[in-house]
Amino acid sequence: MKELKERIVKEGLVIPPNILKVGSFLNLQVDPVLMEQIGEDFANHFAGKGVTKVVTIESSGIAPALMAAKAMRVPLVILKKKPSKILNSNLYQTEVTSFTTQTSYELTLSAEYINENDHVLIIDDFLADGEAATGAIRLMRMAHATVAGIGILIEKSFQPGHDKLVAQGFDVYSQARIASMDKKNGVHFVEE
Amino acid sequence: MKELKERIVKEGLVIPPNILKVGSFLNLQVDPVLMEQIGEDFANHFAGKGVTKVVTIESSGIAPALMAAKAMRVPLVILKKKPSKILNSNLYQTEVTSFTTQTSYELTLSAEYINENDHVLIIDDFLADGEAATGAIRLMRMAHATVAGIGILIEKSFQPGHDKLVAQGFDVYSQARIASMDKKNGVHFVEE
Repeated sequence: MKELKERIVKEGLVIPPNILKVGSFLNLQVDPVLMEQIGEDFANHFAGKGVTKVVTIESSGIAPALMAAKAMRVPLVILKKKPSKILNSNLYQTEVTSFTTQTSYELTLSAEYINENDHVLIIDDFLADGEAATGAIRLMRMAHATVAGIGILIEKSFQPGHDKLVAQGFDVYSQARIASMDKKNGVHFVEE
Repeated sequence: MKELKERIVKEGLVIPPNILKVGSFLNLQVDPVLMEQIGEDFANHFAGKGVTKVVTIESSGIAPALMAAKAMRVPLVILKKKPSKILNSNLYQTEVTSFTTQTSYELTLSAEYINENDHVLIIDDFLADGEAATGAIRLMRMAHATVAGIGILIEKSFQPGHDKLVAQGFDVYSQARIASMDKKNGVHFVEE
Protein backbone atom coordinates (compact mmCIF):
# COMPACT_ATOMS: atom_id res chain seq x y z
CA MET A 1 0.00 0.00 0.00
CA LYS A 2 1.64 3.11 -1.35
CA GLU A 3 0.68 5.67 1.32
CA LEU A 4 1.90 3.45 4.18
CA LYS A 5 5.21 2.62 2.46
CA GLU A 6 5.85 6.30 1.82
CA ARG A 7 5.31 7.15 5.48
CA ILE A 8 7.61 4.32 6.61
CA VAL A 9 10.37 5.61 4.31
CA LYS A 10 9.84 9.20 5.40
CA GLU A 11 9.33 8.77 9.16
CA GLY A 12 10.36 5.23 10.14
CA LEU A 13 13.37 4.87 12.41
CA VAL A 14 15.45 1.70 12.18
CA ILE A 15 16.98 0.61 15.48
CA PRO A 16 19.44 -2.27 15.10
CA PRO A 17 19.01 -5.14 14.90
CA ASN A 18 15.35 -5.52 14.00
CA ILE A 19 13.25 -2.70 15.40
CA LEU A 20 11.35 -0.25 13.20
CA LYS A 21 9.88 2.69 15.09
CA VAL A 22 6.80 4.28 13.55
CA GLY A 23 5.73 6.29 16.57
CA SER A 24 5.00 9.43 14.56
CA PHE A 25 1.99 8.05 12.69
CA LEU A 26 1.01 4.68 14.21
CA ASN A 27 2.18 3.73 17.70
CA LEU A 28 2.47 6.93 19.76
CA GLN A 29 0.99 9.58 17.50
CA VAL A 30 -1.70 8.37 15.10
CA ASP A 31 -2.58 9.94 11.75
CA PRO A 32 -6.36 9.48 11.35
CA VAL A 33 -6.26 10.18 7.60
CA LEU A 34 -3.68 7.44 7.00
CA MET A 35 -5.63 5.08 9.30
CA GLU A 36 -8.75 5.63 7.22
CA GLN A 37 -6.84 4.86 4.00
CA ILE A 38 -5.41 1.73 5.65
CA GLY A 39 -8.89 0.63 6.76
CA GLU A 40 -10.30 1.09 3.27
CA ASP A 41 -7.39 -0.84 1.75
CA PHE A 42 -8.10 -3.80 4.07
CA ALA A 43 -11.82 -3.59 3.26
CA ASN A 44 -11.03 -3.68 -0.47
CA HIS A 45 -8.66 -6.62 -0.13
CA PHE A 46 -11.03 -8.72 1.99
CA ALA A 47 -14.27 -7.69 0.23
CA GLY A 48 -16.60 -10.60 -0.48
CA LYS A 49 -14.92 -12.89 2.09
CA GLY A 50 -17.92 -12.86 4.44
CA VAL A 51 -16.12 -11.18 7.33
CA THR A 52 -18.47 -10.84 10.34
CA LYS A 53 -16.05 -9.16 12.77
CA VAL A 54 -12.62 -7.55 12.80
CA VAL A 55 -10.40 -8.70 15.68
CA THR A 56 -7.29 -6.90 16.88
CA ILE A 57 -4.80 -6.87 19.77
CA GLU A 58 -4.55 -3.89 22.12
CA SER A 59 -3.35 -1.26 21.87
CA SER A 60 -1.50 -0.37 18.64
CA GLY A 61 -3.83 -2.49 16.50
CA ILE A 62 -6.95 -0.60 17.59
CA ALA A 63 -6.70 2.50 15.36
CA PRO A 64 -6.19 0.74 12.00
CA ALA A 65 -8.56 -2.12 12.93
CA LEU A 66 -11.32 0.33 13.90
CA MET A 67 -11.05 1.99 10.50
CA ALA A 68 -11.14 -1.41 8.75
CA ALA A 69 -14.22 -2.39 10.77
CA LYS A 70 -15.87 0.91 9.84
CA ALA A 71 -15.13 0.40 6.14
CA MET A 72 -16.43 -3.21 6.31
CA ARG A 73 -19.47 -2.23 8.42
CA VAL A 74 -18.80 -4.86 11.09
CA PRO A 75 -17.94 -4.61 14.82
CA LEU A 76 -14.38 -4.60 16.14
CA VAL A 77 -13.40 -7.01 18.94
CA ILE A 78 -10.30 -6.20 21.02
CA LEU A 79 -8.08 -8.94 22.44
CA LYS A 80 -6.58 -7.77 25.73
CA LYS A 81 -3.11 -8.48 27.04
CA LYS A 82 -3.21 -9.61 30.68
CA PRO A 83 -0.10 -10.16 32.78
CA SER A 84 -1.32 -13.52 34.10
CA LYS A 85 -4.00 -16.18 33.72
CA ILE A 86 -7.45 -15.26 35.01
CA LEU A 87 -9.85 -18.01 36.07
CA ASN A 88 -13.13 -17.02 34.49
CA SER A 89 -15.42 -19.16 32.39
CA ASN A 90 -16.33 -16.18 30.20
CA LEU A 91 -12.75 -15.70 28.99
CA TYR A 92 -10.57 -17.56 26.53
CA GLN A 93 -6.86 -17.15 27.21
CA THR A 94 -3.63 -18.23 25.55
CA GLU A 95 -0.03 -17.44 26.36
CA VAL A 96 1.95 -15.41 23.83
CA THR A 97 5.72 -14.98 24.11
CA SER A 98 7.30 -12.11 22.25
CA PHE A 99 10.55 -13.16 20.59
CA THR A 100 11.66 -9.54 20.42
CA THR A 101 11.24 -8.68 24.08
CA GLN A 102 11.34 -12.25 25.53
CA THR A 103 8.30 -11.42 27.64
CA SER A 104 5.02 -13.33 27.91
CA TYR A 105 1.44 -12.28 28.38
CA GLU A 106 -1.99 -13.90 28.35
CA LEU A 107 -3.93 -12.88 25.26
CA THR A 108 -7.56 -12.71 26.32
CA LEU A 109 -10.90 -12.86 24.48
CA SER A 110 -14.25 -12.23 26.16
CA ALA A 111 -16.24 -15.28 25.10
CA GLU A 112 -19.51 -13.42 24.50
CA TYR A 113 -18.23 -11.42 21.52
CA ILE A 114 -17.01 -14.22 19.20
CA ASN A 115 -18.86 -17.47 18.49
CA GLU A 116 -19.18 -20.27 15.94
CA ASN A 117 -21.06 -18.04 13.50
CA ASP A 118 -18.13 -15.65 13.18
CA HIS A 119 -15.71 -15.46 10.28
CA VAL A 120 -13.10 -13.01 11.48
CA LEU A 121 -10.46 -10.78 9.97
CA ILE A 122 -7.49 -10.49 12.35
CA ILE A 123 -5.65 -7.16 12.03
CA ASP A 124 -2.38 -6.26 13.71
CA ASP A 125 0.21 -3.53 13.26
CA PHE A 126 3.34 -5.69 12.95
CA LEU A 127 4.10 -9.24 11.79
CA ALA A 128 7.57 -10.59 12.66
CA ASP A 129 7.70 -14.08 14.17
CA GLY A 130 3.93 -14.46 14.04
CA GLU A 131 3.51 -15.17 17.74
CA ALA A 132 0.75 -12.63 18.38
CA ALA A 133 -1.19 -13.60 15.23
CA THR A 134 -0.86 -17.30 16.10
CA GLY A 135 -2.18 -16.56 19.59
CA ALA A 136 -5.15 -14.69 18.11
CA ILE A 137 -5.86 -17.66 15.80
CA ARG A 138 -5.79 -20.05 18.80
CA LEU A 139 -8.38 -17.86 20.56
CA MET A 140 -10.62 -17.91 17.47
CA ARG A 141 -10.43 -21.74 17.48
CA MET A 142 -11.37 -21.83 21.20
CA ALA A 143 -14.42 -19.71 20.31
CA HIS A 144 -15.19 -22.08 17.37
CA ALA A 145 -14.95 -19.19 14.92
CA THR A 146 -13.21 -19.33 11.54
CA VAL A 147 -10.52 -17.00 10.23
CA ALA A 148 -11.27 -15.15 6.98
CA GLY A 149 -7.80 -13.66 6.80
CA ILE A 150 -4.96 -11.86 8.51
CA GLY A 151 -4.34 -8.21 7.71
CA ILE A 152 -0.99 -6.69 8.71
CA LEU A 153 0.23 -3.13 8.33
CA ILE A 154 4.00 -3.75 8.47
CA GLU A 155 5.52 -7.16 7.82
CA LYS A 156 9.18 -7.93 8.48
CA SER A 157 9.37 -10.41 5.62
CA PHE A 158 12.87 -11.48 6.66
CA GLN A 159 11.40 -13.00 9.84
CA PRO A 160 9.41 -16.27 9.75
CA GLY A 161 5.87 -15.08 10.68
CA HIS A 162 4.47 -14.62 7.17
CA ASP A 163 5.64 -18.00 5.88
CA LYS A 164 4.45 -19.82 9.03
CA LEU A 165 0.93 -18.40 8.63
CA VAL A 166 0.76 -19.00 4.87
CA ALA A 167 1.95 -22.61 5.43
CA GLN A 168 -1.11 -23.10 7.66
CA GLY A 169 -3.34 -21.99 4.79
CA PHE A 170 -4.18 -18.49 5.99
CA ASP A 171 -4.81 -15.58 3.63
CA VAL A 172 -2.17 -13.11 4.87
CA TYR A 173 -2.25 -9.60 3.41
CA SER A 174 0.49 -7.20 4.50
CA GLN A 175 0.29 -3.60 3.33
CA ALA A 176 4.04 -2.97 3.61
CA ARG A 177 6.44 -5.94 3.30
CA ILE A 178 9.96 -5.13 4.43
CA ALA A 179 12.66 -7.20 2.72
CA SER A 180 15.54 -5.65 4.65
CA MET A 181 16.31 -2.65 6.82
CA ASP A 182 19.30 -1.11 8.45
CA LYS A 183 20.21 2.25 9.90
CA LYS A 184 22.48 3.25 7.02
CA ASN A 185 20.48 2.15 3.98
CA GLY A 186 17.01 2.48 5.44
CA VAL A 187 14.06 0.29 4.57
CA HIS A 188 13.72 -1.84 1.43
CA PHE A 189 10.39 -3.40 0.52
CA VAL A 190 9.69 -6.77 -1.10
CA GLU A 191 9.24 -6.27 -4.88
CA GLU A 192 5.64 -7.08 -5.84
CA MET B 1 -25.49 12.68 23.38
CA LYS B 2 -28.61 10.73 22.50
CA GLU B 3 -27.09 7.74 20.66
CA LEU B 4 -24.60 7.02 23.45
CA LYS B 5 -27.22 7.32 26.22
CA GLU B 6 -29.52 4.93 24.35
CA ARG B 7 -26.75 2.34 24.06
CA ILE B 8 -25.89 2.65 27.76
CA VAL B 9 -29.53 2.07 28.70
CA LYS B 10 -29.89 -0.84 26.28
CA GLU B 11 -26.56 -2.64 26.81
CA GLY B 12 -24.86 -1.25 29.93
CA LEU B 13 -24.46 -3.59 32.89
CA VAL B 14 -24.40 -2.11 36.37
CA ILE B 15 -22.18 -4.00 38.81
CA PRO B 16 -22.49 -2.79 42.40
CA PRO B 17 -21.31 -0.55 43.80
CA ASN B 18 -20.04 1.74 41.05
CA ILE B 19 -19.05 -0.20 37.93
CA LEU B 20 -20.81 0.24 34.59
CA LYS B 21 -19.80 -2.34 31.99
CA VAL B 22 -20.13 -1.24 28.37
CA GLY B 23 -18.07 -4.03 26.84
CA SER B 24 -20.51 -4.66 24.01
CA PHE B 25 -19.94 -1.35 22.21
CA LEU B 26 -16.92 0.41 23.78
CA ASN B 27 -14.42 -1.56 25.87
CA LEU B 28 -14.26 -5.10 24.48
CA GLN B 29 -16.35 -4.92 21.34
CA VAL B 30 -16.38 -1.55 19.58
CA ASP B 31 -19.16 -0.22 17.35
CA PRO B 32 -17.42 1.85 14.65
CA VAL B 33 -20.64 3.63 13.64
CA LEU B 34 -21.28 4.83 17.19
CA MET B 35 -17.60 5.82 17.54
CA GLU B 36 -17.89 7.97 14.43
CA GLN B 37 -21.00 9.69 15.82
CA ILE B 38 -19.17 10.24 19.12
CA GLY B 39 -16.15 11.70 17.30
CA GLU B 40 -18.35 14.10 15.32
CA ASP B 41 -20.16 15.18 18.48
CA PHE B 42 -16.84 16.05 20.15
CA ALA B 43 -15.71 17.90 17.02
CA ASN B 44 -18.94 19.93 17.04
CA HIS B 45 -18.67 20.76 20.72
CA PHE B 46 -15.02 21.85 20.56
CA ALA B 47 -15.20 23.54 17.12
CA GLY B 48 -13.43 26.89 16.99
CA LYS B 49 -11.37 26.21 20.13
CA GLY B 50 -8.08 25.95 18.21
CA VAL B 51 -7.40 22.31 19.07
CA THR B 52 -4.07 21.18 17.56
CA LYS B 53 -4.06 17.58 18.82
CA VAL B 54 -6.37 15.09 20.48
CA VAL B 55 -4.77 13.22 23.41
CA THR B 56 -6.11 10.00 24.93
CA ILE B 57 -5.13 7.21 27.32
CA GLU B 58 -4.62 3.64 26.09
CA SER B 59 -6.48 1.53 25.38
CA SER B 60 -10.24 2.14 25.69
CA GLY B 61 -9.90 5.84 24.81
CA ILE B 62 -8.26 5.13 21.44
CA ALA B 63 -11.34 4.29 19.36
CA PRO B 64 -13.49 7.34 20.24
CA ALA B 65 -10.46 9.67 20.32
CA LEU B 66 -9.33 8.53 16.87
CA MET B 67 -12.75 9.37 15.46
CA ALA B 68 -12.69 12.78 17.17
CA ALA B 69 -9.21 13.46 15.74
CA LYS B 70 -10.45 12.44 12.29
CA ALA B 71 -13.47 14.76 12.53
CA MET B 72 -11.25 17.62 13.77
CA ARG B 73 -8.51 16.90 11.18
CA VAL B 74 -5.73 16.78 13.78
CA PRO B 75 -3.37 13.98 14.94
CA LEU B 76 -4.12 11.74 17.91
CA VAL B 77 -1.46 11.27 20.62
CA ILE B 78 -1.72 8.21 22.88
CA LEU B 79 -0.61 8.30 26.52
CA LYS B 80 0.72 4.90 27.53
CA LYS B 81 0.29 3.17 30.88
CA LYS B 82 3.61 1.76 32.11
CA PRO B 83 3.92 -0.40 35.22
CA SER B 84 6.91 1.58 36.55
CA LYS B 85 9.00 4.68 36.04
CA ILE B 86 11.32 4.67 33.05
CA LEU B 87 14.43 6.84 33.05
CA ASN B 88 14.41 8.46 29.63
CA SER B 89 14.78 12.13 28.84
CA ASN B 90 12.35 11.82 25.93
CA LEU B 91 9.47 10.79 28.19
CA TYR B 92 7.23 12.68 30.58
CA GLN B 93 5.77 10.49 33.32
CA THR B 94 3.34 10.95 36.17
CA GLU B 95 1.86 8.45 38.60
CA VAL B 96 -1.88 7.84 38.45
CA THR B 97 -3.71 5.88 41.16
CA SER B 98 -7.07 4.42 40.30
CA PHE B 99 -9.53 4.86 43.18
CA THR B 100 -11.67 2.03 41.79
CA THR B 101 -8.98 -0.63 41.57
CA GLN B 102 -6.48 0.88 44.05
CA THR B 103 -3.67 0.24 41.59
CA SER B 104 -1.09 2.69 40.26
CA TYR B 105 0.62 3.13 36.93
CA GLU B 106 2.95 5.62 35.28
CA LEU B 107 1.10 7.61 32.62
CA THR B 108 3.65 8.30 29.89
CA LEU B 109 3.92 10.86 27.10
CA SER B 110 6.62 10.75 24.42
CA ALA B 111 8.00 14.28 24.55
CA GLU B 112 8.41 14.70 20.81
CA TYR B 113 4.67 14.64 20.06
CA ILE B 114 3.40 17.47 22.29
CA ASN B 115 5.07 20.87 22.75
CA GLU B 116 4.40 24.46 23.77
CA ASN B 117 2.55 25.20 20.53
CA ASP B 118 -0.11 22.59 21.27
CA HIS B 119 -3.62 23.27 22.52
CA VAL B 120 -4.95 19.81 23.23
CA LEU B 121 -8.31 18.15 23.64
CA ILE B 122 -8.06 15.30 26.17
CA ILE B 123 -10.55 12.49 25.49
CA ASP B 124 -11.24 9.53 27.76
CA ASP B 125 -13.95 6.90 28.00
CA PHE B 126 -14.88 7.32 31.69
CA LEU B 127 -14.70 10.13 34.24
CA ALA B 128 -15.21 9.13 37.89
CA ASP B 129 -12.72 10.53 40.41
CA GLY B 130 -10.80 12.38 37.70
CA GLU B 131 -7.45 10.76 38.47
CA ALA B 132 -6.61 9.75 34.88
CA ALA B 133 -7.70 13.12 33.42
CA THR B 134 -5.71 14.97 36.10
CA GLY B 135 -2.65 12.86 35.23
CA ALA B 136 -3.09 13.69 31.53
CA ILE B 137 -3.33 17.41 32.41
CA ARG B 138 -0.09 17.17 34.46
CA LEU B 139 1.67 15.65 31.43
CA MET B 140 0.42 18.48 29.18
CA ARG B 141 1.87 20.99 31.68
CA MET B 142 5.22 19.16 31.67
CA ALA B 143 5.20 19.49 27.86
CA HIS B 144 4.26 23.22 28.20
CA ALA B 145 1.09 22.64 26.20
CA THR B 146 -2.31 24.11 27.03
CA VAL B 147 -5.60 22.26 27.44
CA ALA B 148 -8.48 23.27 25.17
CA GLY B 149 -10.91 20.97 26.89
CA ILE B 150 -11.72 17.56 28.29
CA GLY B 151 -14.10 15.30 26.39
CA ILE B 152 -15.60 12.32 28.22
CA LEU B 153 -17.94 9.64 26.93
CA ILE B 154 -19.42 8.47 30.24
CA GLU B 155 -19.31 10.57 33.39
CA LYS B 156 -20.32 9.24 36.78
CA SER B 157 -21.61 12.59 37.96
CA PHE B 158 -22.12 11.27 41.50
CA GLN B 159 -18.32 10.97 41.83
CA PRO B 160 -16.10 14.05 42.28
CA GLY B 161 -14.10 14.08 38.99
CA HIS B 162 -16.31 16.48 37.02
CA ASP B 163 -16.51 19.10 39.75
CA LYS B 164 -12.79 18.88 40.49
CA LEU B 165 -11.91 19.57 36.85
CA VAL B 166 -14.47 22.36 36.44
CA ALA B 167 -13.19 24.00 39.66
CA GLN B 168 -9.76 24.18 37.99
CA GLY B 169 -11.31 26.08 35.09
CA PHE B 170 -11.40 23.31 32.50
CA ASP B 171 -14.08 23.02 29.83
CA VAL B 172 -15.41 19.53 30.57
CA TYR B 173 -17.91 18.08 28.10
CA SER B 174 -19.39 14.66 28.94
CA GLN B 175 -21.64 12.99 26.38
CA ALA B 176 -23.50 10.90 28.95
CA ARG B 177 -23.74 12.14 32.54
CA ILE B 178 -24.94 9.48 34.97
CA ALA B 179 -26.77 10.85 38.02
CA SER B 180 -27.31 7.46 39.63
CA MET B 181 -27.21 3.80 38.78
CA ASP B 182 -28.03 0.51 40.42
CA LYS B 183 -28.73 -3.01 39.35
CA LYS B 184 -32.47 -2.85 40.00
CA ASN B 185 -33.39 0.56 38.58
CA GLY B 186 -30.69 0.84 35.94
CA VAL B 187 -29.03 4.05 34.84
CA HIS B 188 -30.44 7.55 35.34
CA PHE B 189 -28.88 10.52 33.57
CA VAL B 190 -28.43 14.10 34.79
CA GLU B 191 -31.32 16.23 33.47
CA GLU B 192 -29.95 18.82 31.03
